[in-house]
Amino acid sequence: MGSTPRIGIIGATGAVGRVTMELLRERGYDDVRYYASSRSAGTELDGGVVEEATPEALSAGDLDLCFFSVGTAASRELVPHAVRGGATCIDKSSAYRLEPGIPLVVPEVNGTRALEHDGILANPNCTTIPLTMALKPLHEEAGLARVRLATYQSVSGAGAQAMEKLRVTEPGAANLAMDWDFEGDEFEEESKLRAETRKILELPELPIAATCVRVPVMIGHAEAVWVETAEPIAPERARELYAAAPGIRLVDFPTPGEAAGTDDVLIGRIRSDPTTATGLQLFVVADNLRKGAALNAIQIAELVLERAPLSAQR
Amino acid sequence: MGSTPRIGIIGATGAVGRVTMELLRERGYDDVRYYASSRSAGTELDGGVVEEATPEALSAGDLDLCFFSVGTAASRELVPHAVRGGATCIDKSSAYRLEPGIPLVVPEVNGTRALEHDGILANPNCTTIPLTMALKPLHEEAGLARVRLATYQSVSGAGAQAMEKLRVTEPGAANLAMDWDFEGDEFEEESKLRAETRKILELPELPIAATCVRVPVMIGHAEAVWVETAEPIAPERARELYAAAPGIRLVDFPTPGEAAGTDDVLIGRIRSDPTTATGLQLFVVADNLRKGAALNAIQIAELVLERAPLSAQR
Repeated sequence: MGSTPRIGIIGATGAVGRVTMELLRERGYDDVRYYASSRSAGTELDGGVVEEATPEALSAGDLDLCFFSVGTAASRELVPHAVRGGATCIDKSSAYRLEPGIPLVVPEVNGTRALEHDGILANPNCTTIPLTMALKPLHEEAGLARVRLATYQSVSGAGAQAMEKLRVTEPGAANLAMDWDFEGDEFEEESKLRAETRKILELPELPIAATCVRVPVMIGHAEAVWVETAEPIAPERARELYAAAPGIRLVDFPTPGEAAGTDDVLIGRIRSDPTTATGLQLFVVADNLRKGAALNAIQIAELVLERAPLSAQR
Repeated sequence: MGSTPRIGIIGATGAVGRVTMELLRERGYDDVRYYASSRSAGTELDGGVVEEATPEALSAGDLDLCFFSVGTAASRELVPHAVRGGATCIDKSSAYRLEPGIPLVVPEVNGTRALEHDGILANPNCTTIPLTMALKPLHEEAGLARVRLATYQSVSGAGAQAMEKLRVTEPGAANLAMDWDFEGDEFEEESKLRAETRKILELPELPIAATCVRVPVMIGHAEAVWVETAEPIAPERARELYAAAPGIRLVDFPTPGEAAGTDDVLIGRIRSDPTTATGLQLFVVADNLRKGAALNAIQIAELVLERAPLSAQR
């Protein structure tokens, strides 16, 4: 495969697909093909015409690397065909994230797991990625005991149609929303966040309680986080740890507006939790389309491309 | 004073002042005069012309009851004049909230305190009111041990100018904001929430950690709350307690859009906190201009008017 991988973006016309396309171009990848459902096939994008994502097209052997930004059901159907065709697949749906043996990767947190793949690698949920980046340095320093968080998730996390709907909403009518399916007594979004964070940090019992909320902001997910650790960490020490952590930028008051269009996870409002001797409060924000999705997936692919030629791994 | 109190609204042209006016009219109070700063004096409102809120005007003896919805500095200056003129004053700023001897009242929570006033009663912060209403039944049942919350506060909490600014903001540019002053390592808004909640619940040591965030929603403040109690409470039991509590309405997924324009505090998403044996998670929403401000203040006044003639208390 060498240095110019043949790349496919499946779900190219969606919000994350378009950002994947932009980021690949910025990074100098020029052999990129676009795929989408039959409804969007034929759409002309900046770099070419969108093809229909059929099992035949994806298994034809034309692709070395595939980025899937489609729904879970479509990923389950199509990813195996692309793998059969010889492509390494980075899947951004929840189809494979919790499957044993499939790496679920945040490069800054558990990048070495990317080398254990068997053709499929999973990209975590857009809220999981910044959370694990915020938790990892604290865990290494003092051991995580318990995590609680409330999210402020932007509408782009719900896709291009939700973004269009917000564009035409009267400011006086904008509302918070809770537009996720239910699983037991919580949202699937909250269950995923817990299960994925446990898998990535390799802490299968870590207690996590999340309340997920959609806010009328276009891009950028924020999280108000309470972390309890086994040993106390002073806020100053947490700041030192984050200052030294890759992919994290310390700011006083992180907002989605500041994070949108950038690659970093912003962390700020680092304070002691006054209700416990071993707690910290944080506010964490990231561009959900970039670090929360497209960028993280590309970073996973680059780990795979860099550290071992794809051909040697299959 | 009898049954037709002479009422003054000071700060009548602001967001809360206007709602106070509407609610008083709905409730049949018809002897209402409007006051504001010199800048707004002369403005014609639905029920009359706005007079300038001078010390002379307020101490002239024309008023039995005053609702102050002005800044803290203006309240400190003007309230004593109105009291001198014989009016009972309900102040919505933070000027008097924490002053010993001045009742800080949420009628459903500590209404009897309203009878201990000496001319001034304080109305709590718009985030404090729904929080204390959510906490009180849990405290009576099982004893509060620890409270953490993240807020989703609407822009109307920042006043009429902030509302106008949101009205002309492009949806793509709407952002979260943290527009409060600092006190130590947290926002004043967070310190107030803690101190006021402790005073209202009469739990001076209650551990409370808050992260306050402004969201681009016009009306309605929401709070994601984690409550730890001394004894465990099942979510079903919490629902029973709330179903029986005055001023609270149980809904599955409370949003500001549902709360706006209504008087109730909406509580939903009641779940066990999976990170502890004695914890609950809640989502609490109220109209910050009504129950969070104007309505609560009117309810305080009605407690005073109803239970003891004003003349007997002074």
